Amino acid sequence: MAAVTPKTLLVGQSGGPSCAINATLAGVIHAASESEKVERILGTFHGIEGVLKDNTIDLTGFSDLEKLTATPAMALGSCRFKLPADQDDPIYEKILNRLDEWNVGWFLYIGGNDSMDTVSKLAAYFEKVRRQHPEKQVPTVFGLPKTIDNDLPGCDHTPGYGSAARYLSVTMQELIRDTAIYALPSVTIVEIMGRNAGWLTLAAGLPRFMGGCKPDIVAIPEVPFDEDAFLDRIRMLQKEEHTIIVAVSEGLRDKNGDYVGSSSKSGAVDVFGHAYLSGVGKYLEHLVKHKIGCKVRSIELNLMQRCSAHLASRTDLEESFAVGAYGTRQALEGVTGKMAVIRRSEENGGYKAVYDCEEIEKCANQELLVPEKWFNLEDKTVQKEICDYILPLIKGEAKHFTDDYGNYDYINWLQYSNAEGGR
Amino acid sequence: MAAVTPKTLLVGQSGGPSCAINATLAGVIHAASESEKVERILGTFHGIEGVLKDNTIDLTGFSDLEKLTATPAMALGSCRFKLPADQDDPIYEKILNRLDEWNVGWFLYIGGNDSMDTVSKLAAYFEKVRRQHPEKQVPTVFGLPKTIDNDLPGCDHTPGYGSAARYLSVTMQELIRDTAIYALPSVTIVEIMGRNAGWLTLAAGLPRFMGGCKPDIVAIPEVPFDEDAFLDRIRMLQKEEHTIIVAVSEGLRDKNGDYVGSSSKSGAVDVFGHAYLSGVGKYLEHLVKHKIGCKVRSIELNLMQRCSAHLASRTDLEESFAVGAYGTRQALEGVTGKMAVIRRSEENGGYKAVYDCEEIEKCANQELLVPEKWFNLEDKTVQKEICDYILPLIKGEAKHFTDDYGNYDYINWLQYSNAEGGR
Repeated sequence: MAAVTPKTLLVGQSGGPSCAINATLAGVIHAASESEKVERILGTFHGIEGVLKDNTIDLTGFSDLEKLTATPAMALGSCRFKLPADQDDPIYEKILNRLDEWNVGWFLYIGGNDSMDTVSKLAAYFEKVRRQHPEKQVPTVFGLPKTIDNDLPGCDHTPGYGSAARYLSVTMQELIRDTAIYALPSVTIVEIMGRNAGWLTLAAGLPRFMGGCKPDIVAIPEVPFDEDAFLDRIRMLQKEEHTIIVAVSEGLRDKNGDYVGSSSKSGAVDVFGHAYLSGVGKYLEHLVKHKIGCKVRSIELNLMQRCSAHLASRTDLEESFAVGAYGTRQALEGVTGKMAVIRRSEENGGYKAVYDCEEIEKCANQELLVPEKWFNLEDKTVQKEICDYILPLIKGEAKHFTDDYGNYDYINWLQYSNAEGGR
Repeated sequence: MAAVTPKTLLVGQSGGPSCAINATLAGVIHAASESEKVERILGTFHGIEGVLKDNTIDLTGFSDLEKLTATPAMALGSCRFKLPADQDDPIYEKILNRLDEWNVGWFLYIGGNDSMDTVSKLAAYFEKVRRQHPEKQVPTVFGLPKTIDNDLPGCDHTPGYGSAARYLSVTMQELIRDTAIYALPSVTIVEIMGRNAGWLTLAAGLPRFMGGCKPDIVAIPEVPFDEDAFLDRIRMLQKEEHTIIVAVSEGLRDKNGDYVGSSSKSGAVDVFGHAYLSGVGKYLEHLVKHKIGCKVRSIELNLMQRCSAHLASRTDLEESFAVGAYGTRQALEGVTGKMAVIRRSEENGGYKAVYDCEEIEKCANQELLVPEKWFNLEDKTVQKEICDYILPLIKGEAKHFTDDYGNYDYINWLQYSNAEGGR
């Protein structure tokens, strides 16, 4: 076997941000720094766009991995870029030539479902080139999971979910206390991310599932939503208590599969005469106001549920780091076209994360939904299963890099991006 | 001097919740427990309503003051109740009789501008009774400040503001990181509480005032808002950078004093055919979308900015406790019709809170606005003054009563309220 020529390891981040995606990047840098095969660690700004636009940062020798781990959102920036289906499109050759020019041996891509589409397409194209030109050095390409949505197939859970879940559980407890203070009938609708999967909303439901009574109603996209049943349930609950709290996924659907409140999207117009796009929370607020008439408010947890690094789960950050390091070692061994996944081992009764590889085709463009056995959210045995599933993932407070005034000391590499996105 | 007959100290909370109002309650209980004059500590549920409805809890001997201090929102519940202007209204006699029945010697009321109206009216009525019937034992009534809005006259700052300010500064830093990731033009509008005063929005502006460049625009109700100038400023900023973040107070007004976006309140109708009430954030989102056309989103920080106890400022909680204890000692000494205030001493160059009393008429129904010298938010010297003012108030992380999974161990007295508001 010929001596290995040291090469460049390239890493990028893509898709929506999370509190944990920089932890995975730190894991990549850690494993790459340990390997003698790696001569240089190169970060591409804004994912695959940085490859196309020659916009990178040299991360060789970077060692402040703890601070990187604690930095909110994406230190390398992100993109929403879909590679064309046609492998003959010149973009593929351009990418390969650029990687060749940079002497890239391994390309690690951290992202969710859409980002894995990029990994999948590049892996297929590189494989084709490898077959057609065996003499050519072609990099391995490897996916590292990231999404607060927790919907990547093959994963027990995804890096980022635990931190978002911790934010949602803590915030819901505080909202419960806040809304409890008035002795007047009120309904509070809390809208949580999740177009198709209800994982995040289940986390917001934790205070209830752990033996409490709130949030009073938990509604996820997987279970068809019936407006009349919803209103009847509120009316029934109001006979017993003043304060009703509802946790709903943004992607709530009716029995026909239509988004709840989608009719309002054509019905309402704003002052500019354009369609008024309202979320499901706002829609349900109006519904309750008009049909029941009590005090009602809706709260959208918006970007805070994905960027609140101050509430990150220590377990989530540790696992996100570990899956980055694991995947990097796999790629360095020549594994290509796969994604690293976190599985769950409960061998000795306790929770333990174990790391494995999954075929990229199984992960790209597909979504893992909440299992049907959990649909009956009122059932105690189901509630126990939900708690048993989520609790280990939100365990522990992460280390903060904030001073006594709450000011973050974070990594700000984006200031060096020539795309000027990050200033 | 005759021997003092031990009496009941009554305490209640009123108005909107904060992270610090239970700290003040803990201070009241602490000072009352230390006094030999106090035979019994009684908490009234839902403020003055608990007096009218005989809905109370005996807090004598309660000693878990640390946990009470860390409990979000109001342990005794709240109300929005305005006493009538007419002192001959029978409600006043009813209240006095009830306090007499309970053997109340001192009534402490924790709240903001509106709650101080209750203190002011009761104090005036009690004073009248005292004059007309010198033989009658009439309680002292004393106000303790509370509002995240920071708008109580006579106060350097109000209990609750520091914690909300800490939440806003930390959250804004995280939003800045989150929105920085894409190399695409975008505008993010963050809407912050404050109908008339911009104190909270200034706190959200801290990352900028401390020498950063974001949020790019900070707009407060005290400064008339000009839509064209706002759009021009965004267009100018977009020549330099992709990501624009704007912090605005919910009560932003134009030069005529009308709420910004108020026209949309009549223009938009929802799917039920009713007026669509949108906040200033949503309005500005639509404005930017239609006039500039880039990616734009609005974020309402909603109840989270007042209930996020996990981000409470240690300084705020300590001062809130201290002002509660101070005010209670004043009331026990016979001071009536006043409110305790926090003033600032900078004698030896360092920040120090000192406690004092203010006439209740100066505090009730009035609002303290941001001083005019701070209106030029671009000016560096002004920025330094804002930092010097806010930073000491947000100093220190408060002790949390959460387990390793972020579950709160909080005081839940409302479960004993016969108004059933808190379950």
